[in-house]
Amino acid sequence: MEDDLRNTAKATTTYNMEAQANEERDPESNSLHQPLLKRNRTLSSTPLAMVGSKVSHIESLDYEINENDLFKHDWRSRSKVQVLQYIFLKWTVAFLVGLLTGIIATLINLAVENIAGYKLLAVVGYIEKERYLMGFIFLAGVNFFLTLIAAVLCVCFAPTAAGPGIPEIKAYLNGVDTPNMFGATTLIVKIVGSIGAVSAGLDLGKEGPLVHIGSCIASLLGQGGPDNYRIRWRWLRYFNNDRDRRDIITCGASSGVCAAFRAPVGGVLFALEEVATWWRSALLWRTFFSTAVVVVVLRAFMEYCKSGNCGLFGQGGLIMFDVSGVTVSYHVMDIIPIAVIGVIGGVLGSLYNHFLHKVLRLYNLINEKGKIYKLLLSLTVSLFTSACLYGLPFLARCRPCDSSLSESACPNTGRAGNFKQFNCPDGYYNDLATLLLTTNDDAVRNIFSTNTSSEFHVFSLTIFFVLYCILGLFTFGIAVPSGLFLPIILMGSAYGRMLGIAMGSYTNIDQGLYAVLGAASLMAGSMRMTVSLCVIFLELTNNLLLLPITMLVLLIAKTVGDCFNPSIYEIILDLKGLPFLEANPEPWMRNITVGELADVKAPVVTLNGVEKVGRIVDVLKKHYTQRVPHSLQKKWFLQEKRRTEEWEVREKFTSVDLAEREGKIEEVAVTKDEMEMYIDLHSLTNRTPYTVMESMSVAKALVLFRQVGLRHMLIVPQYQAAGVSPVVGILTRQDLRAQNILTAFPHLEKSKGREKGT
Amino acid sequence: MEDDLRNTAKATTTYNMEAQANEERDPESNSLHQPLLKRNRTLSSTPLAMVGSKVSHIESLDYEINENDLFKHDWRSRSKVQVLQYIFLKWTVAFLVGLLTGIIATLINLAVENIAGYKLLAVVGYIEKERYLMGFIFLAGVNFFLTLIAAVLCVCFAPTAAGPGIPEIKAYLNGVDTPNMFGATTLIVKIVGSIGAVSAGLDLGKEGPLVHIGSCIASLLGQGGPDNYRIRWRWLRYFNNDRDRRDIITCGASSGVCAAFRAPVGGVLFALEEVATWWRSALLWRTFFSTAVVVVVLRAFMEYCKSGNCGLFGQGGLIMFDVSGVTVSYHVMDIIPIAVIGVIGGVLGSLYNHFLHKVLRLYNLINEKGKIYKLLLSLTVSLFTSACLYGLPFLARCRPCDSSLSESACPNTGRAGNFKQFNCPDGYYNDLATLLLTTNDDAVRNIFSTNTSSEFHVFSLTIFFVLYCILGLFTFGIAVPSGLFLPIILMGSAYGRMLGIAMGSYTNIDQGLYAVLGAASLMAGSMRMTVSLCVIFLELTNNLLLLPITMLVLLIAKTVGDCFNPSIYEIILDLKGLPFLEANPEPWMRNITVGELADVKAPVVTLNGVEKVGRIVDVLKKHYTQRVPHSLQKKWFLQEKRRTEEWEVREKFTSVDLAEREGKIEEVAVTKDEMEMYIDLHSLTNRTPYTVMESMSVAKALVLFRQVGLRHMLIVPQYQAAGVSPVVGILTRQDLRAQNILTAFPHLEKSKGREKGT
Repeated sequence: MEDDLRNTAKATTTYNMEAQANEERDPESNSLHQPLLKRNRTLSSTPLAMVGSKVSHIESLDYEINENDLFKHDWRSRSKVQVLQYIFLKWTVAFLVGLLTGIIATLINLAVENIAGYKLLAVVGYIEKERYLMGFIFLAGVNFFLTLIAAVLCVCFAPTAAGPGIPEIKAYLNGVDTPNMFGATTLIVKIVGSIGAVSAGLDLGKEGPLVHIGSCIASLLGQGGPDNYRIRWRWLRYFNNDRDRRDIITCGASSGVCAAFRAPVGGVLFALEEVATWWRSALLWRTFFSTAVVVVVLRAFMEYCKSGNCGLFGQGGLIMFDVSGVTVSYHVMDIIPIAVIGVIGGVLGSLYNHFLHKVLRLYNLINEKGKIYKLLLSLTVSLFTSACLYGLPFLARCRPCDSSLSESACPNTGRAGNFKQFNCPDGYYNDLATLLLTTNDDAVRNIFSTNTSSEFHVFSLTIFFVLYCILGLFTFGIAVPSGLFLPIILMGSAYGRMLGIAMGSYTNIDQGLYAVLGAASLMAGSMRMTVSLCVIFLELTNNLLLLPITMLVLLIAKTVGDCFNPSIYEIILDLKGLPFLEANPEPWMRNITVGELADVKAPVVTLNGVEKVGRIVDVLKKHYTQRVPHSLQKKWFLQEKRRTEEWEVREKFTSVDLAEREGKIEEVAVTKDEMEMYIDLHSLTNRTPYTVMESMSVAKALVLFRQVGLRHMLIVPQYQAAGVSPVVGILTRQDLRAQNILTAFPHLEKSKGREKGT
Repeated sequence: MEDDLRNTAKATTTYNMEAQANEERDPESNSLHQPLLKRNRTLSSTPLAMVGSKVSHIESLDYEINENDLFKHDWRSRSKVQVLQYIFLKWTVAFLVGLLTGIIATLINLAVENIAGYKLLAVVGYIEKERYLMGFIFLAGVNFFLTLIAAVLCVCFAPTAAGPGIPEIKAYLNGVDTPNMFGATTLIVKIVGSIGAVSAGLDLGKEGPLVHIGSCIASLLGQGGPDNYRIRWRWLRYFNNDRDRRDIITCGASSGVCAAFRAPVGGVLFALEEVATWWRSALLWRTFFSTAVVVVVLRAFMEYCKSGNCGLFGQGGLIMFDVSGVTVSYHVMDIIPIAVIGVIGGVLGSLYNHFLHKVLRLYNLINEKGKIYKLLLSLTVSLFTSACLYGLPFLARCRPCDSSLSESACPNTGRAGNFKQFNCPDGYYNDLATLLLTTNDDAVRNIFSTNTSSEFHVFSLTIFFVLYCILGLFTFGIAVPSGLFLPIILMGSAYGRMLGIAMGSYTNIDQGLYAVLGAASLMAGSMRMTVSLCVIFLELTNNLLLLPITMLVLLIAKTVGDCFNPSIYEIILDLKGLPFLEANPEPWMRNITVGELADVKAPVVTLNGVEKVGRIVDVLKKHYTQRVPHSLQKKWFLQEKRRTEEWEVREKFTSVDLAEREGKIEEVAVTKDEMEMYIDLHSLTNRTPYTVMESMSVAKALVLFRQVGLRHMLIVPQYQAAGVSPVVGILTRQDLRAQNILTAFPHLEKSKGREKGT
């Protein structure tokens, strides 16, 4: 009896869920709005939360080792050959992730540069013939059409493909399984949508989307293909567990950053600093391998495209925004402008976060009204962008070319390059057109250009800065794949360069470097990264001597930004209501015990070790779960109430079966007769769950939960006796979130807001 | 009663230790020899292990949150001001660590470059006058004297200052508290010894020692000064816990690497990839801050020294071995030499590890004989080195200077620089003297030099390579502070350059870059790092375009090396017998439960919640421990057997008292009367330890132990009843080490050597 009690207690681990969320929201609404978590006196212990547009069922991932009879015969403890297979396969997947991410990134670049390039060439053609209106109609029309494609795809086929995807990946690696994030449809929509949105000249980048694309590729490779057409290959069962998938997706995320910025080390560090929650030395090595493959692929394509095989794509080398041509000489007094850049970057960055938050909430209200509103919003932004990009350069005065420049350099009528002629006579250039009527990448290249101290007038830079502040705020939330990096770089470089002009002769630092520092500071002020940004900027600009200054600027900007609000990714995570677990427990969590948490929850539902099918089905239906045990799926029912033997289980289930994720209860049809039969849960239940005593503080329990990566944590009573249940409660991720605890225990609020992240 | 039982069980947490290790070794012997762990049928559950020369008492560090009555009044849960104080202080310490490490590193460089520089100038003077014998005597004499200083200091005052110190720091950050590692004596000996050893021209670097120096500074700052003269400042109590000390020492280690290579990002990554066991995003940021401070300090000193204020120091900028002067152009066919370099690097690296292991064992036998033998060994190596450095260049033929070079460049009679004249007539240079008769830093600079394809003859490079293989093996283990980086770079660059010559016209890559790649490959082959080496080499050489090749070379070399043996640091850790806990449990650990482990251990010693002083003293004396509870130290004894109130405790102990580390039992004198009195352990005992069920596998328990950073782990029985002890055993770090488990359960051995580190 005691035996049974204890085992049943453990059987509950997987099936303790509360009633289904009772609210259904419009499935059409955008993926960014207030979390809809229940705010009643009882703790929301359900693993369900509302994500994105729909009331979705977010599951926690499970990194715990499942110990039961079957587990003992897991492949891991079997033959050496299988272990070698596993290692080989894991490296192969890492290789393929790098390879495919590299290829897809190149294809996206190729498509963008050709579409945007020919579009711009045509516009320049109209302008040369002084057919200005026609030029505008052409530009706006093409941009409108490209945005339409991207938005329709996102709205109709894969709402999760909108936005950067980085916050969801960050949440995934923290243990939150957002549905429909890594599917094949999402991948395709993200690729095509990204090409459309970037070619449309919208103020967004392909960096965030590439991170998501890399992760999708990784996830699909790991599970053997799209959900419905999976290769159920024997080897692939090795990756049908959350731990290995986590590693693979980390590789994908770093490959994405690497492909976006051609920054292999920066990619690894980005994944490490911003995205990943758990990290091991072995993983560092594997992500490094993936990014190395990406770089080799990029390099090979560039070599191939140099000879003009790829249309307008292929100019430029591995370094995107090279500023190594200028010698960095600075002395003690330069510390002042550096500090100023850092402080302004921090302030502007946190302001950007603040206003973006407001805009996203506003957009959410619009998007909730239906698909058509989502589309209209995107198209409005596209039209506004086109109008500004085309119209504003007319405000700038034509400036004469510097005679020291060669004729081919200024004025420039090509698609890329500095010193755009636009509407100016020969020998003159339009500095605002140089920044606006070009692709975003080229705009960054132009504003970073060194040894061109008089190229841009303050007036033009101010227009550019203000325009990109507005666009940066209003473009991000629309329903197309959009990255945050490039908009922030554009904004930051503008104010950096303006500051450089303002400093005038008081400084030794080149204006191009000021632009770089401005971009870095705004990134740090908004995203709050340090080491990875530092390396990404080093790899983007190839100027090692700038490193010490960049470090200082990043540190100052991050510190200043942190005084005002959290990082932009945290804001989005919060907006999306994803139950992200922070690394550090809040100080007030030391004043509440897990026993107190368990008290306000619904009582634990327990099953006997050998239980009636009917009762199991009831419990599963009532407490909606996506994970139905294999024995129910396979209808392995017993006529009598008895314990099964290990060999019986092994006969019934192959290792491939067991590696499969468990299915949904709705998919299992159980007859009335079967309802009266029994299932032995012993052999399939985790028999050694991690437990905490009821007197342990939430802070301490959270350390265990988060460090070990749990899905459920069992609370055992302080004093065990025959009459007392061996388990007093079960805590899930939702129960341990600060927000939810504070809702149930408002008196803790007063001590909130203390030490954090130190 | 039940209450008492349970609480007593928890009181045992801190005091369960086995009998003192019964073997005493010669305290004079060197710090590198076989671990002396007990190999009997019972598991060694003692936290004591033998480290280095002495039977030392290694304690596990404790990262667990200690929850008891007093803890509730910890400053962390108190006022906002205290929390701000803490944050401010933590950043201040990080700043000071960077500042002091930067200053000390500069002073070491300054001393080394001046001592070695004037020494070399004098030798060149003798050679110009053709007084060759006198030159040799001078060189050997000075080197002998410098080595003597370094060795005497290490042997007599701080044996832990010998070697690099990195393995011990790695162990410390894993939770192993090696005694006497971070003291003031060690710091001073390390600084002076390092100056002596490097100036003496020995084949060792100052990189490892600088990492140790950084960590010592960090540790001393954190605890408020040297052990016996500590500032018991109220604020500093914040850092008297293992978690904060761990963070501070990580900052110190990265600052050290940064100061050694002038590589701020490389320093952070080195600490992350190689040294640290636990890592958080917040820590990444703080270490980055420390290294930024180091770089600013280095830069400021360089600026100051440029004008000649620092003797021979101050030439060269932030980049140590700049090879950016050459354009990297490579095509598909270059993949072959790259792969060859990688494979050879991996093979040579693992061979180096293998032979170094043998040499260290041999040295150990010699060093165990006494201090004088240690000294003699060091001095012999010094004499041998001097003889080789001076004598071998005479074997090389004089080569005519390239007429395209300016006269000041070749031949060179200065202390640094390329194309040394040595014994050659004007217009000729001695290529071997260019590599040997110079400081190690300059030797690397010369062999990395680009666009000098015909500078070095294969014959000279071969001699150089063979010599440095021999020196690299025989220098490392002597009793002076020694780093491994530079010897390996020298060895690797030689074979890289040889390979470059062998490739001849088949390759587009410059020979200087071959040398860089050779060095990188050998580093990866021996140390098995990837990302951090990549960044360090990037920051050392300032050639971003080399990055993709470097990545490939590093990955290949590490993969090849891993096929043969573990990394050099792991080998040294193992030699020193430090109980390092690996990240991944061995596969066979899934086949043994913690209950089985507990069974072969000595029975658990339990104390009652309110216990007689006599019994506590007995237990502590028998099971030697370094941590005596405060109530015993302060002699807070009770006349009657009663529970104390919370206010009583708080009245007795201030927060400063409680933050102090607990003392030794020998230091507490208890009278006979007092022995009969009582102590209430409740308020000072951790009342919510992490527990595991006896049926849990060791693999799973190890995940908890290592992830949460425990010192002890309690095993609770599967079925609890009134008569059964609430705790069936306690596991420590030693119990969970694979080696120790295999000794007690040899049958597990057969399944050993499977999947690891994947």
